[in-house]
Formats: sequence, structure tokens, C-alpha cells
Amino acid sequence: MRFFSDNAAPVHPKVMQAIADANQVDTAYDGDRLSAQLDARFGELFGRDVAVLWVATGTAANCLALTSLCQPHQGIICHREAHIEVDECGAPGFYTGGAKLMLVEGIGAKIAPETVSDLLGSIRDDVHQVQAAALSITNATEYGLVYTAQEVSALAALCKQHGLGLHMDGARFANAVASVACHPADLSVRAGVNVLSFGFAKNGGMGAEALVYFDPAQADAARYRRKRAGHLQSKGRFLAAQLLAMLDGDLWLENARTANAAAKIIADAAPERLMHEVQANEIFIRLSAGEAASLRQQGFDFYDWGEGAARLVTSWHHKPEDVAPLAAAIAAL
Amino acid sequence: MRFFSDNAAPVHPKVMQAIADANQVDTAYDGDRLSAQLDARFGELFGRDVAVLWVATGTAANCLALTSLCQPHQGIICHREAHIEVDECGAPGFYTGGAKLMLVEGIGAKIAPETVSDLLGSIRDDVHQVQAAALSITNATEYGLVYTAQEVSALAALCKQHGLGLHMDGARFANAVASVACHPADLSVRAGVNVLSFGFAKNGGMGAEALVYFDPAQADAARYRRKRAGHLQSKGRFLAAQLLAMLDGDLWLENARTANAAAKIIADAAPERLMHEVQANEIFIRLSAGEAASLRQQGFDFYDWGEGAARLVTSWHHKPEDVAPLAAAIAAL
Amino acid sequence: MRFFSDNAAPVHPKVMQAIADANQVDTAYDGDRLSAQLDARFGELFGRDVAVLWVATGTAANCLALTSLCQPHQGIICHREAHIEVDECGAPGFYTGGAKLMLVEGIGAKIAPETVSDLLGSIRDDVHQVQAAALSITNATEYGLVYTAQEVSALAALCKQHGLGLHMDGARFANAVASVACHPADLSVRAGVNVLSFGFAKNGGMGAEALVYFDPAQADAARYRRKRAGHLQSKGRFLAAQLLAMLDGDLWLENARTANAAAKIIADAAPERLMHEVQANEIFIRLSAGEAASLRQQGFDFYDWGEGAARLVTSWHHKPEDVAPLAAAIAAL
Amino acid sequence: MRFFSDNAAPVHPKVMQAIADANQVDTAYDGDRLSAQLDARFGELFGRDVAVLWVATGTAANCLALTSLCQPHQGIICHREAHIEVDECGAPGFYTGGAKLMLVEGIGAKIAPETVSDLLGSIRDDVHQVQAAALSITNATEYGLVYTAQEVSALAALCKQHGLGLHMDGARFANAVASVACHPADLSVRAGVNVLSFGFAKNGGMGAEALVYFDPAQADAARYRRKRAGHLQSKGRFLAAQLLAMLDGDLWLENARTANAAAKIIADAAPERLMHEVQANEIFIRLSAGEAASLRQQGFDFYDWGEGAARLVTSWHHKPEDVAPLAAAIAAL
Repeated sequence: MRFFSDNAAPVHPKVMQAIADANQVDTAYDGDRLSAQLDARFGELFGRDVAVLWVATGTAANCLALTSLCQPHQGIICHREAHIEVDECGAPGFYTGGAKLMLVEGIGAKIAPETVSDLLGSIRDDVHQVQAAALSITNATEYGLVYTAQEVSALAALCKQHGLGLHMDGARFANAVASVACHPADLSVRAGVNVLSFGFAKNGGMGAEALVYFDPAQADAARYRRKRAGHLQSKGRFLAAQLLAMLDGDLWLENARTANAAAKIIADAAPERLMHEVQANEIFIRLSAGEAASLRQQGFDFYDWGEGAARLVTSWHHKPEDVAPLAAAIAAL
Repeated sequence: MRFFSDNAAPVHPKVMQAIADANQVDTAYDGDRLSAQLDARFGELFGRDVAVLWVATGTAANCLALTSLCQPHQGIICHREAHIEVDECGAPGFYTGGAKLMLVEGIGAKIAPETVSDLLGSIRDDVHQVQAAALSITNATEYGLVYTAQEVSALAALCKQHGLGLHMDGARFANAVASVACHPADLSVRAGVNVLSFGFAKNGGMGAEALVYFDPAQADAARYRRKRAGHLQSKGRFLAAQLLAMLDGDLWLENARTANAAAKIIADAAPERLMHEVQANEIFIRLSAGEAASLRQQGFDFYDWGEGAARLVTSWHHKPEDVAPLAAAIAAL
Repeated sequence: MRFFSDNAAPVHPKVMQAIADANQVDTAYDGDRLSAQLDARFGELFGRDVAVLWVATGTAANCLALTSLCQPHQGIICHREAHIEVDECGAPGFYTGGAKLMLVEGIGAKIAPETVSDLLGSIRDDVHQVQAAALSITNATEYGLVYTAQEVSALAALCKQHGLGLHMDGARFANAVASVACHPADLSVRAGVNVLSFGFAKNGGMGAEALVYFDPAQADAARYRRKRAGHLQSKGRFLAAQLLAMLDGDLWLENARTANAAAKIIADAAPERLMHEVQANEIFIRLSAGEAASLRQQGFDFYDWGEGAARLVTSWHHKPEDVAPLAAAIAAL
Repeated sequence: MRFFSDNAAPVHPKVMQAIADANQVDTAYDGDRLSAQLDARFGELFGRDVAVLWVATGTAANCLALTSLCQPHQGIICHREAHIEVDECGAPGFYTGGAKLMLVEGIGAKIAPETVSDLLGSIRDDVHQVQAAALSITNATEYGLVYTAQEVSALAALCKQHGLGLHMDGARFANAVASVACHPADLSVRAGVNVLSFGFAKNGGMGAEALVYFDPAQADAARYRRKRAGHLQSKGRFLAAQLLAMLDGDLWLENARTANAAAKIIADAAPERLMHEVQANEIFIRLSAGEAASLRQQGFDFYDWGEGAARLVTSWHHKPEDVAPLAAAIAAL
């Protein structure tokens, strides 16, 4: 069984069905009947007017969001291990026209307000230094930790005070919401997030993410930038169909709960091995080379995470009965 | 019946089936078993080693291709009505870091070698003027005309002489090949094309185009640029599946022939109305406002093309019996 | 005697003196006592609050101005023969991050409001096409024609109506003001210009232009962009000194009048040869190859301007007695 | 007396004279007689063919150099306190089209080969991570330390092994050469440097730096990029004049020796206060707020460097007798 990443999981059957159902002639790009429903449907979910753009990848969603919050000569604060810094091949630099990622530290890729304050305090207020315009946080983080609504609010307050925009990379936003068991608006717009990359590809989708603007006016320029980046697919109805299927009956939440539950089963099997608390669907454990080899021999696949450690990621299609053997195998090491 | 654009047509059932079949756990991004077959399969088609990258849109394919042929301070010659100039919201400027599109004229969006020579001759060879580095042609053109292998060769020879790279925007390459009834290599690599945007979305695909590098080494940087543009989808197997399904049994060619045949039926109904010879699957006809209204009342939809003219586009799903009524209605005007 | 270009002329002695006088220790960059006077001094000249940035070249001034008026996904309308299009090696594309120059025609590189209206009318209001955000005009134009205050106002009114910013490339703004004999504000801020590249290098300066923001708030981002473009010179006092020396006693106007007067002497010698009315300091005349050779033999140097034509440019250091021989030689052809 | 920075010092009289001497009509841009001498004159200095471009600032020199060594999707390794990272307002991101600065540590802003090796070893060789294409080092460093020829060679060897280009930010290259008392080629081309930003503005110039390409072919694209960045001044002869005057009789070296000697006098007055060895013309000393105030009261000006520290910079115009009082004052604290 594979625990490499949730982004390699199968597409959820309901999403596949929605794609099949969308296969008819319709208006091209985002002029179709499905895309036209997105603002309203996500608006219901978040309890306010929003503007939503589908894009095929999290990188595109993140980077379009950053261009809405940052001019080319400005900077974006993020964690040193943020996906936008480490795993997007410099996409933010490309999309923003050379804006600077300003890196901060924090355990488990989580950023504390003081860290942001310290960074801001260290920037000279003159034209020789790039000035920060935005903060980007990832929820759940790259290490599977979750910002609570309160934590997001604290960061948002700081942003507001310093005139920074707040972006949330929510590639695993569903897992974060499932983890803290709050309303999705609590972790985003009510807490002060300006733009959310709401991920679905890791959560049962095929190739669609929702870029959610809580200030709909900000989306106007983003629509041009999406086209300009080659992300306005001509058969956009197939992306809209995915997103709508995920919203139907809160499939997004159900899938995330399943993934989180699977992670918990594994985590509970070896609490002493955990490098970070397992709050969502990623498990980082200490694992010797020999132990890793043993697990692999038993048919479990996953990434090594440096020396003596491993990362395992669960997803919507890991049922409890699927992960129990892994949990047992780890416990038995 | 809708004749707005081939890019709004349904996905071909065999492509839908291939997508469904690809729905299993596999390696993410382009590490899956399907993506791994692309180079070989397209290599067979073109009769030589190629490197192929899937991307979701023609704009992405075109612009990635341009970055392979042109530095930011250089220029790309194209037709004044080329898609990259007129319909991609400035994407080439974004992807290339501000390279300049250098526009030339030509009937039916087709470029003649002399026009390119004239333009090249008009550029002062000093640092105050942008120097051309590439030529981009569209086959079939934006007006449905087709470059023959000989015509492409003539342009390629000129490019070689002046040190220019040659890109072909083949959003409707299949229709061009079907039109001139030659080997696909004759219209591309054998003629001297360096990079081909081989379109499938307009020809029965869902959201996948093949960016074909006839010099595989040139693809190396493009792989980074694709990621950096947010176009490396995590479930890339679904894009590869589309391309492979289109290659199977030359479905791409069959679909293009169907579309071209449908266009011919319409064209033959009103030869005196044609603004351009119908060589592929686009029909531009003179049509008064009243005539257009009459056709629309009979259930035919299409775009006005300025005053007194209309554009109709056929696609793989327009069977002869589907277009016959339109042909009759036009003839009866 | 050389009539190649005013940009190769000597530096005016008063400017040289000001440079020599500025040679003392002072605060670096634009923190010196001279730079600090620019806003006030130019404010007096224009009769209102302005923000002024020195830069070394017209290209830098123009392109920084454009970034203030245009986002990367937008466009700038300019003449097909505008300096920014033809002679800056694609600098606007570099500075703006790939914004598009949208070219219009007009005799003598002068743009008429209807031409702009027509262009705007031809742009589809959808995300596939670049939308215009600014108009850039050159005064005096690249062919030595001058926009009157009324003409600028008419263009500015159109810009306002369509939400476009208005930039004036004033590499020869002084010559334009001298030509129409109005207040400099009449040709710029009172007419509705938002940002002016006020040129001095062609008018007796060494290497300093004034980028004048009539809305001082717009200059804030430009200050960062200037630094980011490597144009914030550490000994900026030497640039400020040039500008201040040019303002002293309206040396800028006196120099421009001298240049214009010299051009008029030449123009009057051969009215029937003129390709454009000589309104500033550039003369375009019909001249056969033999005639050109004859003039050159007599010691006059200038650029050929295509087949059978020549361009001559006068500058501040062309006294009437200097140009009289050339006028006589042309008359005698 | 001011010890803020060498970039605020007066222009050396010989440079001023050369500027005055250049004030005649000549060909514009870099077509003049002075600019034409640069390649040969710098070629003599370095003992081989070089291509040299003048630019007005160190930022422009550095960033043009980086574009020669790095594609937009790649990265440049530099010190966390390098000028290009900390004090150029993101200019590298602008010039390179979003390439990434990859930061390493090192005492006194000096980079050790192992640090570079470690960084390179930490980059996954896949398209998700930016790959390094160049290393940029500053000599003398931002803290006044000097790389010896051997140290540069060791870094260059590493670069060669990994296919990286090597750029040297030589804003204070003269001070470095004076410090190690070697041939300028030993610290640059013979050691393996590909492109050198050879600074003169901090060393007695007005506004001219030499961008030195040891592989002249690499300069070709840079000439276009210089124009495109607005750095091709029309009266370029005044920049060339500065550089030539600095080369005459090795004025550059004499000036640097003077500056270094002045720094040594100050350093020797308080060896126990030094935070870094004084190898060139910058002195970083521990200084309490009270001590700083006392020095300022005695007429000495300088920058605080965080809490309890100060930076003093000497330049070509600090004669021994000028700095002796400061040395005495520090010793007397």
C-alpha cells in the first residue's frame, strides 16, 4: 500500500461521475453552466460573497493569489519550508515578476506572530530593502500541523496592523478544517484570510483547485492573470464539475475526515516515534533504515525524510481497514 | 446545433474511457506509467526521438515553446492575427519575461517567407532594437488555412539562414495533417519545425496538449519552466491518458478528418459566401445580420465575425448528418 | 558639423559647472541636499505639488513611468514609431513584466484621439485580450512634431473616459514647450498628463532626466522600482545638480529655443524638401544619395533616413552662425 | 568628518578632469572614442581579452552579470548578507525574471566551499526545486573581509565541478586587490571568475562601474540587456572617461591603498573593539551608545550597526592625517 502522497491517490468516484456527466457541448472556458455556479456555491459554504476561480494546480492557485497581494518589488513572508519556497521551482518569482520570499522559521512549518514581527522589525524602511506586502501560511502545514482559528486570527491581526495581505495555502485546507472541527469560514475569512488556495486534488479531485477571493473585486485582475498563465482551460466545465462534486454533501469534509482518521490510526501505533503531532493526514516518524526496509518488504511504500525518518501521507481512500496492517507493522517493529 | 468552437465540443468517448481507466494509485506528477510512454509513442508517430510534455492548454504549450527559442530581450515573429498575439492575454510576454511579438501580415493569417525577410531586413542590427530569435506559425491558421509541407520548409529554411527557431502552434495540427493528407512529420520535423504545440483539446481531448520537442535536449529547461508555471499537474496520468488514447489507432487523425469533412459540407453549400478557402475545420462566410438571425432561429449557433460575416467551426462530433441541415439552411438563404 | 542627434551634443557649461560644484562629501543616493530640492523646484515650475525622481536615461524614465500606469497583464497604447516601441530594445516589456505595447498609426508619429478610440473599440472586453491601461505620447514626437495643449487635453479627456493613465515621453519636452510658447504646465499637468519624462540629456545635460509625477503618491512605488532597476545612483547629487542647473534661469527653455531656432534656419532653406513641418529641433528632408554625399563632403554629418531622405537634429549648441552654412549648402543643392 | 560610506565620497580630481575633458561632440551611446578603448585597456590590466560594459551602478553591474549566468528558473548562491540579497531591493529578481537567491552563511559575509557543497547537496535533483546555476561572491565582502586568490580558486573549482558560473561583486575589488597585494587577474580571471563587477564609484568615480566579461562572447547578450534596462546612457563617453582615468597610472589601486591605510590606522587604535579583522576599508567595532554619542560630539559621523556596534568606512580621500584624530578619539574612549 502506498503512502507517498495524497496527491497520487485515485479520484473519488463521485468526482469521476461528475466529470462524466459534464461531457456535453457547453460554452468554452469558464462560460459554462457549471463554472457559473462556483461563486454562489462557495459563497454558501463560506457564508458570504466570494469570487472563485478554478485552476489545475496548487502552484497556480498559490501564485495567482500572491500576485493579488504583492507588487513585483515587494516581498511575501513565508516559512522556510513552505511549499511555495521549497517545492514550486520558483513559481512565485515567475508569477510575481520577481517578488521576494522572506523566510521565517517555526516548528513544524508553522509560523508564530512574533516571528513575523521580528522579521518586519528587521527590514529597514528604505528603498534599498524589499518591503513585505503579504504573509502566506499553509494550513495544514507541510508537516501536518494545523493552525487554529485563533492562531490564524492572531496572524491576520498582525497583517492588518502592518498593511500585509494574508494568503492561505490550503492544499490541505479540508484536512485542517476536519482536524479542528470548525466552520471553514472560521479558519479563513472570519479569521482574516484574504485569499485562500482551497485544494481538492489531494482530497479526491482529479486536477482542480479553488482559488477563493474573499474580496471578490480582487479576483478581477486574477482572471486576466489566469488566462495569461495558460490556466484558463477551454473545457473548464470539467474543473468546475470536480469542485461542485466535492461541495455536494460536503464530500470534501468527509474525505478529509477519512484521511485524518487513517493518519491517527497509524500515529497511535507508535506515539514515541512521532516527530510532529499528527493533526491532519501526514505522519512524520523516526524510522531507521532497517525498519524502513522491513516495512517496505511488507508492502508499505513511503518517502524517506532525511536520515532516520520517514513521511507517510494518508488520503480519502485509506479506509481504517487499509491502514490497520501498517499500524500493526509499525507497532511491531 | 453549436458551431462556436471546437474547443467546446464533448470529449471523445475513447478519451473519457482512458481517463476512467487511469483512475488508480500511481506515481504523482509525470512519474506515472502513462506519462512515461509519451516520448516513445510520439517518437513512433514522428519517426524519430522526441521529448514530449503534456500541458493543459494551448496557451501553456505555445508559451513554453517560445521560452525555449527566445531570450527575454529578443523577439518572436508571428502573424498579426496569431492566437499568441490576439487571444492569449499577453501570455507570451509573461512566459518569456517580456520578449516582443513582431507582427507580420498575410492573408488568412498565413505568413509568406518574403514577409519574414522584409521584417528581418527592417530591423537595425544594433542594441536599440529587439532582434528576432524565432518565428511562430499556426497550422492550420486562425482562418482555417493550411501550410503545406513545402510552405513550412520554405519558412524553416529562412529561419535557419537567419538563426531563428521555428515554432508551430498546432492547436489544429491534426486538421492540417488531415487536410494535406501527408505524414505528420512532413508538416513538422522533416520540414524544419523545432517545437510543436500539438493540440488535442479541440480534437476530442478534455484538457491535454502535447508539447513536442524535436530536439529532446531543449525539453530539459522546459520541464522546469512547466513546473514553475504551475502546469505540472500532480495527477498527470490523466493528461497522459488522453494523449495516448488519441494516438491509439490514430484517433487524432480520424477525428480531424471528421471535422474537416463536416466543414467541407457546409462550405460546399455556399461557395460564393466563403471569405477564405475552407481547408480545415473553420468556415468564414459572408452573412448579413438578417441571414444570421434566420440561421439562429433555425437552431444553429455560431460567432459573428465583425459586420456581415460569421465564423463556424466544426469538430470531431459533427457527423455529416449533423451538418447537412446547416448546409441546407445556408444554401436556402 | 554634426547633426546626428541632440543626444551627442556637449554638456552645457553651466551644467558642467554645477557638476563640479557638487563635488563634495554628501549623503549618498538621493539623500543629498540637491536631490532634496527637486520636488520643490519642479513644483514651482509646474505650479503644483509634484514628486520628481532623477534617472540617467530617457528609457529608464519612460519605463518606470509605464510601470506606474500599467499592470503586467495590461497594455499601453503608443505610436508604431514611438521610441518606447522602436528604440528601447524592449525595455517596456522588461520593466512592466511583459505588458503589451498596442500600436497605432498617425502622421509624424502623432496620435489622434479617433485612432485611440478605434483601437479601444477593437479590443474585446474579455480575458483573452489584453486590455489597455495607459496611453503614452511623445512630445515633441519622433518626427519633430508638437502636440499643442489642446491636443494633449483631447487625448487626456479620452483617457479619463476610458480609465487610462496618460504618460508623456518628453525627451524633447523642452523643445515642445519652446515651440508652442506656452507654460510647461499647459502641455502636461493642466492638460491631463499623469507622468512626464522630462528630458535634459538631449538639451544640454550630461546624464539626468526628471521623472515627474503630477500625483506625488504614485511616485512611492517608483522609488523602489528605480532602486530595483539599478538606477538609484550612489552619488545622485550629480544628477540633481544637472537638473537644478537646467531649471536655473530657465536654461532648459533657452537651450530648447536655441535648438529650435537652428532647426528653423535649416528648414527655411529648403521648404520644398521637408517631409514633416519643422516644429521643434528635428528636420526630415528629401535628399538624394548624391545630395547627401555632397553635403557630407562639405563637412555636414547626419543620418540617412531610409532611401532618399535624411534626418538632421539641432541642439542647444548650434548657434545661428553654425547652421547658416548648412542652410546655404542645402539651398544650393 | 564622515565615515558613513565610501559611496558618498567626492569624485577624485583626476576623474573630474577626465569628465571635463570629455565634453565635446562625439558619437552617442557607446560609440564614442573613449568607450571604444575600454576592452583594450581593461584587457591590458587583466592580461587577456575581455569585454567591458560601463554601467552607472553596482546594482546594474551585478544584476546584468547574473542574467549572463542564470536562466529565470534557476538559482544563484550567495551569502545571506550579500549586497544583492540585502541592499538592492530585489534587483536580481527583476533582472533575472525571478531567479532565486539561495542563501548561505559564513562569518564576515565570506563563503566557504563546504557551505556551497552542503547547499548543493541539499537540493533535490527534480523539477520541483530550483537548481543552482551560479555562485556570487563579494570581494571585499560586506564586512570588509578579503578572499585571497587561493580562496577564490577553491570556490571556482567547486563551481566548475558543478557547472555553476562564478560572479564576483567587486564593488570594492580595488580594496581587495590592494589588501592582498596581488595582480588583479589573480583575484579574478586566473582564479576562475567568469564575470566581475569592478567598482569605481566607491573608489573615486562619479557614476561608472565596469562590468568585465572574461569570456567576451558572454557580453553580447548583456549589451542588449543593458539597453533594455535603460542603462545605455546616450553620453556614455562620460562614463568611459571615468573608467579610463581610474586606470591611468593605476589610480584605482592608489585610491584603494589610501582607503585601506586609513582603515588600518583606525583599526589599530582599538584592536579589542574589532568585530571583524580589518582587511580592506571597512571597520566594524563594538561601541556603546554613549561612546558613539561621544565620537559624534567630536565631529565623527558613521552608521550604528545594530545595538552596541558601529560601521566606519574609509575612502580614497581619507588621508592619514584626516583619520588620526578619529583613531585617537576611539583609543581615548
